[in-house]
Amino acid sequence: MTYCIGMLLDAGLIMMADTRTNAGVDNISTYRKLHTYQSDDRFIAIATAGNLSVTQSTLLRLDEGLEIEGSEVRETLYTVPSMFRAAELVGKFLRETHTQIKAGYEAEGISFGASMLMGGKIGDEPLKLFLIYDVGNAISCGKDTPYLQIGELKYGKPILDRALTFDTAFNEAVKLGLISFDSTMRSNLAVGLPIDITMLRRQNGVNAKSYRVERTDPYFQEMSREWGVKLKEAQASIPRPPFVEIPENRG
Amino acid sequence: MTYCIGMLLDAGLIMMADTRTNAGVDNISTYRKLHTYQSDDRFIAIATAGNLSVTQSTLLRLDEGLEIEGSEVRETLYTVPSMFRAAELVGKFLRETHTQIKAGYEAEGISFGASMLMGGKIGDEPLKLFLIYDVGNAISCGKDTPYLQIGELKYGKPILDRALTFDTAFNEAVKLGLISFDSTMRSNLAVGLPIDITMLRRQNGVNAKSYRVERTDPYFQEMSREWGVKLKEAQASIPRPPFVEIPENRG
Repeated sequence: MTYCIGMLLDAGLIMMADTRTNAGVDNISTYRKLHTYQSDDRFIAIATAGNLSVTQSTLLRLDEGLEIEGSEVRETLYTVPSMFRAAELVGKFLRETHTQIKAGYEAEGISFGASMLMGGKIGDEPLKLFLIYDVGNAISCGKDTPYLQIGELKYGKPILDRALTFDTAFNEAVKLGLISFDSTMRSNLAVGLPIDITMLRRQNGVNAKSYRVERTDPYFQEMSREWGVKLKEAQASIPRPPFVEIPENRG
Repeated sequence: MTYCIGMLLDAGLIMMADTRTNAGVDNISTYRKLHTYQSDDRFIAIATAGNLSVTQSTLLRLDEGLEIEGSEVRETLYTVPSMFRAAELVGKFLRETHTQIKAGYEAEGISFGASMLMGGKIGDEPLKLFLIYDVGNAISCGKDTPYLQIGELKYGKPILDRALTFDTAFNEAVKLGLISFDSTMRSNLAVGLPIDITMLRRQNGVNAKSYRVERTDPYFQEMSREWGVKLKEAQASIPRPPFVEIPENRG
């Protein structure tokens, strides 16, 4: 399993991915699922969820690039002219990989779904964020719901739904993302630390910053503890329902 | 979709179920999914999730009962000698219904899974709570995790994991259950009010109390509003991560 969040805010782009992969609960490993592509005129980050062989093969195909008729240069994330074309290219390779292994996996009854978040900017275009499905199609993130998730998304969705808006401050949004990861990791062992984060403020052009929240990260440990305490306090402050009969001898 | 919770606490048994059913998002109805069976020596409540035709057929078969060789009386929930035998009987009918419709549904590519929570007590035995799967097997609720869920369970699980223990007070547990429903209904439109609740305190024998939280329920509305406010306060009180660079001109 995996959990990844992408946020496209007024303040910029934030992408977060855990690093746990598992082939059954008895075979757990750490793999980077957040990949970045940077040059003078572009920054692109891709977060992957689903079957690891599918997402890895897709990224390797992306590195090799697409042959273009009549051109000696292959099309890669370093040559595409726009984020939309980048999403099409990723979708094309993802679909090809998916189609290639489909028969074999179906015969074995093994799950082979995969999806990706891709965010960033190329040249002067504004920041963009896409969710790319394994049949190759994509949706684009908008202002009304300024985030996209892939993988084990349900446990950590309520906090984002309640608190995250397009206008949320950049570091507040990173905090909300980490709280969302904390809730997810409590309920699903297949999502785990370290968490990779890529942050690109809108005014910083293509100069992104990356950070890895390690198992021993003091901020994350303290945040997790404090969030638990605050939730307990919030819960305790809510009155109990009046329709539950209180017997004389019991609370 | 559906969401149901069963809690087996020191204080007693609580079962909650929403009432929304849908065949696609354009066909939404209200159906009772929490059913009770009561007589002088027993109280049994069943909450159902999954394909409505499967769960309804199973309950109708249960009402008709199982023919017993050499007996004129058919075995029903009103004649079984124990909750364990009740779980076996429900599992048997659930599996039969499931097997009967399997070929037809599979041919149409329609989801036909179903599961049930069954709680209560018969005679002098202690309160019991089971989760019954559509292949007929069941698991029993224990003290370490004093609740079971079926249906759309992920959005509302974190609050139960954090706050509910075997020793939680009865009305506090009902409150936690309603908060869990509130989180679920915010993220999944296919779970909706009214919510049916059945409450059986341990010292009350087989005298259960039922309550329906209607759309207009003032307690639920106020709880939902207040929980939203408290969560925002809790979130605001958590410090922001120190590793996010603050540019000079932006927060």
